[in-house]
Amino acid sequence: MLPLTIDLNSDVGESFGAWSIPNDERIIPLVSSANIACGFHAGDPRVMLSTCRLAVEAGARVGAHIGYRDLAGFGRRSIDYDPADLRAETIYQIGALRAAAQAVGTTVSYVKPHGALYNRMAHDSVQAQAVIEGILDLDPSLQLMALAGTPVVEQARQAGLSVIEEAFADRAYHPDGTLVSRREPGAVHSDPETAAAQAVAIAEGSPLRAVDGTPVRIAAQSICVHGDNEAALAVVRLIHERFAERGIEVG
Amino acid sequence: MLPLTIDLNSDVGESFGAWSIPNDERIIPLVSSANIACGFHAGDPRVMLSTCRLAVEAGARVGAHIGYRDLAGFGRRSIDYDPADLRAETIYQIGALRAAAQAVGTTVSYVKPHGALYNRMAHDSVQAQAVIEGILDLDPSLQLMALAGTPVVEQARQAGLSVIEEAFADRAYHPDGTLVSRREPGAVHSDPETAAAQAVAIAEGSPLRAVDGTPVRIAAQSICVHGDNEAALAVVRLIHERFAERGIEVG
Amino acid sequence: MLPLTIDLNSDVGESFGAWSIPNDERIIPLVSSANIACGFHAGDPRVMLSTCRLAVEAGARVGAHIGYRDLAGFGRRSIDYDPADLRAETIYQIGALRAAAQAVGTTVSYVKPHGALYNRMAHDSVQAQAVIEGILDLDPSLQLMALAGTPVVEQARQAGLSVIEEAFADRAYHPDGTLVSRREPGAVHSDPETAAAQAVAIAEGSPLRAVDGTPVRIAAQSICVHGDNEAALAVVRLIHERFAERGIEVG
Amino acid sequence: MLPLTIDLNSDVGESFGAWSIPNDERIIPLVSSANIACGFHAGDPRVMLSTCRLAVEAGARVGAHIGYRDLAGFGRRSIDYDPADLRAETIYQIGALRAAAQAVGTTVSYVKPHGALYNRMAHDSVQAQAVIEGILDLDPSLQLMALAGTPVVEQARQAGLSVIEEAFADRAYHPDGTLVSRREPGAVHSDPETAAAQAVAIAEGSPLRAVDGTPVRIAAQSICVHGDNEAALAVVRLIHERFAERGIEVG
Repeated sequence: MLPLTIDLNSDVGESFGAWSIPNDERIIPLVSSANIACGFHAGDPRVMLSTCRLAVEAGARVGAHIGYRDLAGFGRRSIDYDPADLRAETIYQIGALRAAAQAVGTTVSYVKPHGALYNRMAHDSVQAQAVIEGILDLDPSLQLMALAGTPVVEQARQAGLSVIEEAFADRAYHPDGTLVSRREPGAVHSDPETAAAQAVAIAEGSPLRAVDGTPVRIAAQSICVHGDNEAALAVVRLIHERFAERGIEVG
Repeated sequence: MLPLTIDLNSDVGESFGAWSIPNDERIIPLVSSANIACGFHAGDPRVMLSTCRLAVEAGARVGAHIGYRDLAGFGRRSIDYDPADLRAETIYQIGALRAAAQAVGTTVSYVKPHGALYNRMAHDSVQAQAVIEGILDLDPSLQLMALAGTPVVEQARQAGLSVIEEAFADRAYHPDGTLVSRREPGAVHSDPETAAAQAVAIAEGSPLRAVDGTPVRIAAQSICVHGDNEAALAVVRLIHERFAERGIEVG
Repeated sequence: MLPLTIDLNSDVGESFGAWSIPNDERIIPLVSSANIACGFHAGDPRVMLSTCRLAVEAGARVGAHIGYRDLAGFGRRSIDYDPADLRAETIYQIGALRAAAQAVGTTVSYVKPHGALYNRMAHDSVQAQAVIEGILDLDPSLQLMALAGTPVVEQARQAGLSVIEEAFADRAYHPDGTLVSRREPGAVHSDPETAAAQAVAIAEGSPLRAVDGTPVRIAAQSICVHGDNEAALAVVRLIHERFAERGIEVG
Repeated sequence: MLPLTIDLNSDVGESFGAWSIPNDERIIPLVSSANIACGFHAGDPRVMLSTCRLAVEAGARVGAHIGYRDLAGFGRRSIDYDPADLRAETIYQIGALRAAAQAVGTTVSYVKPHGALYNRMAHDSVQAQAVIEGILDLDPSLQLMALAGTPVVEQARQAGLSVIEEAFADRAYHPDGTLVSRREPGAVHSDPETAAAQAVAIAEGSPLRAVDGTPVRIAAQSICVHGDNEAALAVVRLIHERFAERGIEVG
């Protein structure tokens, strides 16, 4: 019998010039998919190369973490893009990261929109379509990583893309499977064991406890984790521990 | 007997957002190689796509016109780059343009540095090596377009790159084959017939008249022409006319 | 009896680096208020200085044409700013232009938001308040130029700012005094005489013809005109002609 | 008798958007002059406001830390600017910071060029003159902070500017009073007591030990210190301690 396997992904390569966001060399070995910023909301060409190298060393897949052209806002501000611009910037960012990946001996296998673009695509089908078409223009074999259960998942599949649905270990869910907004209380699991238990539930396809205590099943092929501080790294290590106890493999 | 053939190249795709640099749709059909800006000194992702489309329609080769990261200076200011940054930005820019080219059904076949980077590489072997290594990291089959007779030509060939040496139709040369600086009088041929005659001489490999009247032979596989104003376009059309009279083909 | 006087304003100083938006030296002598871009959506420090000089020579007031930090989108894309960022950027942009104005012997007397920020402030009171507070933080004697009849006018006055209400010569109005959206037919008056007649009506405080033919009165202290092409310049010259016939002065 | 007083200055306000450079709230209370980045090499409008506020709270003077327009290079790369651009950017950056300072109740009293611009002005009289003239265009009462003993000091004084000569506590000097390059061994004093002793010597106008052990006297009105890590902060605290023992006041 094959072991149960689930993907762990994390946002990395978010340094820019002299400004460093640390821990990439510590979180990348703990995940199977590295979402690497492409220079529009974060990252720069040199950081992209060094982060791709870390992914190669760790055996992690490389994903293009594309974002709005907004360094000053770190891609966290929703922008009313002309779809033609967004489609072209999707192609541009993936292409830039593909070159970095190729230069160090790997390839880009998926695309994960970042921040405000990620959130907007979950409900704005025009921006979602622009990104989907940009990916299709370039390479229909690229996968899209999207929030499990959101309309963009079906929209991308209809368009012919393979989709990786992702869920969060440390975020609370409503009983209908949607995320509790960060503006509401209890949105983030501060207890590492709760986050680890949620990761196990997602990996095993068993129900997790929604914010109101009722069980909810989240179907996802990847779990997003964070590595930007010590506490977050500790959660990821605890997830690995709990996974090992249950025979769940990361990959 | 094969007809005499020479490449004509021109810098295009230099619009940015709402700021338009016109004439791309008029100059591209007149050249065989389109040097397309990659977003660092000029150009943006949407302009790159539309310019690649013009190149496809005209049957022109696509070259990555890479430059310093300096939109405010249009890549015309020499910058003391860390070689590792320049190498990474070379990979990034080529990769971004390769994606645009691929999305419209063509490929990037060569790299031509722009402006201050082009000039600096002619004498700064460290920056030249950074660009050369960036190209090699990504794809050693890419050609480098460089100023005929400058040290970077030999440096790139030693490193294993194929080099396209280019000359200028409208710039005066010294008897030793170097360009007369734009700061000196007589640096630019204002007479279209002089420019056209020089293009013919370069294509035929016959000597042209240096700034002091002595004959000088410039060995080049490509001739750089301009399309950013009516007068420049008229020169390119005159070159085509003189070429046709002598049986020289552009390609 | 004092002659009837009305302000004409125009967006200028929108060149950036090597990219030129022409006609500033032709439109500025035709207006009494020059809205000068401050480097965030358009303009650069050198262009700001030279445009301030043109305003001094023409005797035009200088206004800070502040915009979103979005050169690639020319400030035309609505962005979900954190109000604290928008307030700080308001201070920054006005301050930068004040320095340019001071260096050439003039001052900034008003602030006109640009593009998407202008449009958003008409209905988003949070972003409007951020701009209003930024102006107040810096200098409460600065006036705000805003679209006549929109809620931001009252909001700014409540906050203690003096407001210049502006109307458009070449845009159609609904009977309720709101602008016809550019996405609807008939939004822009293509006939110069219609635009000039509307300018006269606004200046005289007499009703103009709304898009459905009914009369509507627009109370405004300034009229926005354009100078970015020959046709637009011709409209402004025609407005001056019609004004002269009616004894209306620009100032 | 008046106590001996010397200025301590430090580069602050170098965060940008989501990227934070910490310790401003710890170093600013330890210095009498805060060199605040103006958004071209580092800093953003919101950071400028909050840093000005810290300066007000600490009673520190505010200086405009102007730099090349090069966020990606943190202003550390020498750029061949057109002097007219550099002069205009000097005006722009000072103006932007003056507005931030005014908004929180203080003023900009001096200008300190940053990084590559600072180093280049020490030997490139054309770029130095561009900065000097930009300052004079705006406000001749602004002081220029420059490296003690370099030609730019005299150049600025000749042009009518008041100059604050600064020296370094933690950098080794040659016997002729020039700094030992960072590329040479022994350029930086790693021992805190050596740095503190050098600060005392500069403050008292007594000779310090050059890199070869010989005594050298450095005439300076300000000492540059760093706060970007714990070790640097410890050096500044030790300087304060040694100053207190000798009755030297910071101000």
